[in-house]
Amino acid sequence: MPVNLKPPVAAELLPVAGVALGIARAGIRKANRRDLLLIRLDEGAAVAGVFTQNRFCAAPVVVCREHLQAGAIRALVVNTGIANAGTGEPGMQAARATCAAAARLLGCRPAQVLPFSTGVIMEPLPVERLEAGLPACSADLREDNWSAAAEAIMTTDTLPKAASRKVSLRGTAVTVTGIAKGAGMIRPNMATMLGFVATDAAVAQPLLARLVREAADASFNCITVDGDTSTNDSFVLIASGRAGNVPIADAASADYAALKKAVTAVAAELAQAIVRDGEGATKFIAIEVRGGRDVGECKAVGYAIAHSPLVKTAFFASDPNLGRILAAIGNAGIADLDVTRIRLWLDDVLVSENGGRAESYREEEGARVMQQAEIAVRIDLARGAAQATVWTCDFSYDYVKINADYRS
Amino acid sequence: MPVNLKPPVAAELLPVAGVALGIARAGIRKANRRDLLLIRLDEGAAVAGVFTQNRFCAAPVVVCREHLQAGAIRALVVNTGIANAGTGEPGMQAARATCAAAARLLGCRPAQVLPFSTGVIMEPLPVERLEAGLPACSADLREDNWSAAAEAIMTTDTLPKAASRKVSLRGTAVTVTGIAKGAGMIRPNMATMLGFVATDAAVAQPLLARLVREAADASFNCITVDGDTSTNDSFVLIASGRAGNVPIADAASADYAALKKAVTAVAAELAQAIVRDGEGATKFIAIEVRGGRDVGECKAVGYAIAHSPLVKTAFFASDPNLGRILAAIGNAGIADLDVTRIRLWLDDVLVSENGGRAESYREEEGARVMQQAEIAVRIDLARGAAQATVWTCDFSYDYVKINADYRS
Repeated sequence: MPVNLKPPVAAELLPVAGVALGIARAGIRKANRRDLLLIRLDEGAAVAGVFTQNRFCAAPVVVCREHLQAGAIRALVVNTGIANAGTGEPGMQAARATCAAAARLLGCRPAQVLPFSTGVIMEPLPVERLEAGLPACSADLREDNWSAAAEAIMTTDTLPKAASRKVSLRGTAVTVTGIAKGAGMIRPNMATMLGFVATDAAVAQPLLARLVREAADASFNCITVDGDTSTNDSFVLIASGRAGNVPIADAASADYAALKKAVTAVAAELAQAIVRDGEGATKFIAIEVRGGRDVGECKAVGYAIAHSPLVKTAFFASDPNLGRILAAIGNAGIADLDVTRIRLWLDDVLVSENGGRAESYREEEGARVMQQAEIAVRIDLARGAAQATVWTCDFSYDYVKINADYRS
Repeated sequence: MPVNLKPPVAAELLPVAGVALGIARAGIRKANRRDLLLIRLDEGAAVAGVFTQNRFCAAPVVVCREHLQAGAIRALVVNTGIANAGTGEPGMQAARATCAAAARLLGCRPAQVLPFSTGVIMEPLPVERLEAGLPACSADLREDNWSAAAEAIMTTDTLPKAASRKVSLRGTAVTVTGIAKGAGMIRPNMATMLGFVATDAAVAQPLLARLVREAADASFNCITVDGDTSTNDSFVLIASGRAGNVPIADAASADYAALKKAVTAVAAELAQAIVRDGEGATKFIAIEVRGGRDVGECKAVGYAIAHSPLVKTAFFASDPNLGRILAAIGNAGIADLDVTRIRLWLDDVLVSENGGRAESYREEEGARVMQQAEIAVRIDLARGAAQATVWTCDFSYDYVKINADYRS
């Protein structure tokens, strides 16, 4: 059951001029579900993306990287059901055939199409069903179709994930809207399991490439459900340039800062939605680490806690067995960590200092916070000025159930 | 339920001359259970140990490291129930008080005593109960008491763990007997959650220090249950020197090789017993990685698979959803890994080659192996001559249940 997450309201998802979305039921893996999405971009759109660091990366990820280098992207094709990862050379052919089919339909070159897949690994993509479904996607293309698109890319997600922001750039209203999917195999490293964010702002290509990295680092690259980095993680940022703003070309400009804030807000809302809908999640946990020498060690501490099955099951049980958090901090790989300087809070309850339990700590205070659906774990490493936050969820019977049942 | 693991038969655990064990019910955390163990060593015994790399290491681990440097160890005191980790300065005082109490009882110096604790983290050790229990331990000291000792150090273990070997060194019969505990928070890094192995062989101290490292690397340092390195991991090797063999002082000698084989066999049997009794385990999985450039990358691949909750839940479900293993290999952090050269087998069934599913693979073959209680996952990285094996278990509802309930 997702934690404080509601399905997006279609009317609240702002269309982005120059970006049309169409969906279809292509029967990729299961009959009669929305499983194919086509996104068509008007000429002149800029596109940038970041992708998984998994060495067994999916065929569509390889093709995306290739096509993004050439630029002038006109379409994205996304299927759910089959990940087209661990599929060798036939998988590469299937991803290229997907691009060719969309290109024929839209009258562009195959290299102007980006393919994306999500679902089961090491099973062949039924590319003929995908090709057969594309005309229905094309017939469905509309700029106000974000809600249906969010649905069409779900796998074990229990709710679609979408978010919108409006921002003014020197008086010109600009829109940012995005969708994402993912609930398991979530520990993005550079990007997440399919996130698409579009804006009608005009942004120079090199700056867009920078923006997508910066937004990913402050959103998708801060979450984990189970520590498993997916083979298909992709986060793509589209700038259609239709808003009429003065094109943004300077990273030091106020316009860049304003747009970055809006894009990051949308990306962070989507990233948090993935955690809230994490497989079997009953709690949403923000791990805020400060006082580190650099962001890297703050994140290492955050992820050591977020990946500990013992910490995650204690949260599930609402049991303030908080020594497990200390053990996880000790495992973060910081060789010269002085544990006597560390302080640990649950929300505003000081739990640990001087290498042990804080004298002021009362178990009933810890128990009270552990009952909450949203919990902040706050750590001060007291060895520097860097900070980072990692968002995660707990680990429940249902995580095991979902992943023992998936596929069957 | 442990996987193919039986309780040790007391009569099959060979006494080690010069090593006496006594247990008591000290009420450390729960009333009326065996929770305190005293091991007394005759004068002249050599002792070496390896300990956790967790930076939040327990107070007794700090004291053990200190006392081992001085040498001439005469006793070990082990309590279960409370880990005395994350306990700050009061925890250090409790560990030292433990040594002082045992020293008074046995007529030696406190620095000749090694303290060990296991149990809940960040709760104070009731050292007065421990002190009150020591005389009963002392009255119980016997050389044939290994079975009761194995029981006295259990926490979430469902069965005690012990093993024995006999080996002949140039005609002199030598005994190796050991005990271990651990079921959760198991991903030893240098050693495991309390393993004690004793031999009556005479071994020079520097060589014993080498032997304990080598044995740990081939046993406890090859296992994982949940990836959480404990705060208290300790593996201690005792050589009483009472067998009458020519003292071993040369690492290149046949005697060293023979003793190393026996010690490693006992340590590996204990390490595997920990995995077989892993919290909630229903399957025992050996991950054999070969063809790596070095042992480090083979172990990295083994642990990436062994720590993936998705892989572990698939084993629990007996579901040959084996693409998850490819995804885990891709996450092992080997930057220049060529996935098209990797081959993956389940037992003798070839599952994957050329970056995808093997043409010969049939799902029913994979399903057949996945039903077994013992499974070998075999991987050839095809980039070198190194190899390593990691032993692990699956991830079940019961893991969540045990760790959501522990403490309560």
